[in-house]
Amino acid sequence: MFKKIIEPRISETDGMRHINNTTVPVWLEGSRNELFSIFNPTKEFSKWTLLIVNTNINYRNEIFFGEDVEVRCWIKKIGNSSLVLYEEIWQSGHLCVDAETTYVNVDSTSKKSMRISDEIRIVLEKHKLEEKNSD
Amino acid sequence: MFKKIIEPRISETDGMRHINNTTVPVWLEGSRNELFSIFNPTKEFSKWTLLIVNTNINYRNEIFFGEDVEVRCWIKKIGNSSLVLYEEIWQSGHLCVDAETTYVNVDSTSKKSMRISDEIRIVLEKHKLEEKNSD
Amino acid sequence: MFKKIIEPRISETDGMRHINNTTVPVWLEGSRNELFSIFNPTKEFSKWTLLIVNTNINYRNEIFFGEDVEVRCWIKKIGNSSLVLYEEIWQSGHLCVDAETTYVNVDSTSKKSMRISDEIRIVLEKHKLEEKNSD
Amino acid sequence: MFKKIIEPRISETDGMRHINNTTVPVWLEGSRNELFSIFNPTKEFSKWTLLIVNTNINYRNEIFFGEDVEVRCWIKKIGNSSLVLYEEIWQSGHLCVDAETTYVNVDSTSKKSMRISDEIRIVLEKHKLEEKNSD
Repeated sequence: MFKKIIEPRISETDGMRHINNTTVPVWLEGSRNELFSIFNPTKEFSKWTLLIVNTNINYRNEIFFGEDVEVRCWIKKIGNSSLVLYEEIWQSGHLCVDAETTYVNVDSTSKKSMRISDEIRIVLEKHKLEEKNSD
Repeated sequence: MFKKIIEPRISETDGMRHINNTTVPVWLEGSRNELFSIFNPTKEFSKWTLLIVNTNINYRNEIFFGEDVEVRCWIKKIGNSSLVLYEEIWQSGHLCVDAETTYVNVDSTSKKSMRISDEIRIVLEKHKLEEKNSD
Repeated sequence: MFKKIIEPRISETDGMRHINNTTVPVWLEGSRNELFSIFNPTKEFSKWTLLIVNTNINYRNEIFFGEDVEVRCWIKKIGNSSLVLYEEIWQSGHLCVDAETTYVNVDSTSKKSMRISDEIRIVLEKHKLEEKNSD
Repeated sequence: MFKKIIEPRISETDGMRHINNTTVPVWLEGSRNELFSIFNPTKEFSKWTLLIVNTNINYRNEIFFGEDVEVRCWIKKIGNSSLVLYEEIWQSGHLCVDAETTYVNVDSTSKKSMRISDEIRIVLEKHKLEEKNSD
């Protein structure tokens, strides 16, 4: 599991006085930096290989300003070139969001899909969702 | 169909030199103002009744800075208290994003789900997805 | 004068139920696209020459969701390599924001400051602040 | 001094491959939560008393994705109802941004300016800029 603690910002709230729904994908992506560096250790944008294909977000409970949130991310599935994440956002003991996000790994110049290497697979395995379910 | 033209902003791009994926939900929500005003004509936040439940976004083509995008939104399904939208983002003749977003209509004080009124249904019917498919 | 009409988004409001102050620089920059294309007609990021140096923003009146805003931008001063903008945001007949923003024109590879060309100066002159004051 | 460590997000970068200038006010405001809670310990938006009046930001060095930043905030001046902050953003040993931001303290219902209380002044004094200069 990848984990990140985030302190909500005033600018992330909206007129309904909770965190706006468009902040959620920002937090989810902002919590994938460790994952991104597995694919791109030097973090150079010209070498980026992960393209987002789909994100499916369930909003289960409102998130409020004033309490930290915890974003949790597991690897749900490693395909040939695709990667499916399962993610959760928790606040004050409540599951507020769960989401699934799919990336495809591409060659950074040709933009064609590219097999996820064995070296990367080994690291990703440590973050698999099964670990969560076997807890 | 609800329609909105949006001019991409530099701040909405990212290091990969296209529009960042987290901008997409911002544009989709930003294109629902006409829809929101059907449910809440005075636009007062204290009277807001639509809570987002799910959004499922397919990223089909990169979106770039420098060309306007068009966001299109149809009513896919009107349930008792729920509302499903089907949305598309087009740029330069390409379908870049399609998405489905589900709201639930709630009583603004009790936050309990509340039937969508007949008056609102009549207006929503004019924006139904069937119209698109029958074009 | 450069002018842009912007429709406020729910995600740009905050818990105080007006437009959050951090939205203002986003709108100001988002209204400079025409200016940017004078310096960089092809809009390629690798050829970008304008770097922001300072922005000084006065928040004079609250901005609300539900009414379009108009952003106005004038050229206040053209230095050797520097450019000072004067900008205003209006809503419902009220001046809500005025700002000054300074850019420096740089060589896109060396990042060293570079004289603003005569061709560009001629175009910028048409948007000078004096025109406003002589209205 | 108030201090906050922030991990830059991909969505906060732009096509120039550094952190976009509009991210800076977001980080500055996001680092004022401790300050805000001095004025409003329950953090309820309906009791908010601080309204932003001005922000003046110097962009001194580019900020990059991949390295944490540190935001530092001092109280520069406590007026009758006004409050001036001096803020800095550091990354990898470089001062990237310095800024001054002015708030006015208002009655949360009448919105009229209201003297900053003695209790609050005592707490603010501990974060005065003089401490920095006497280091």
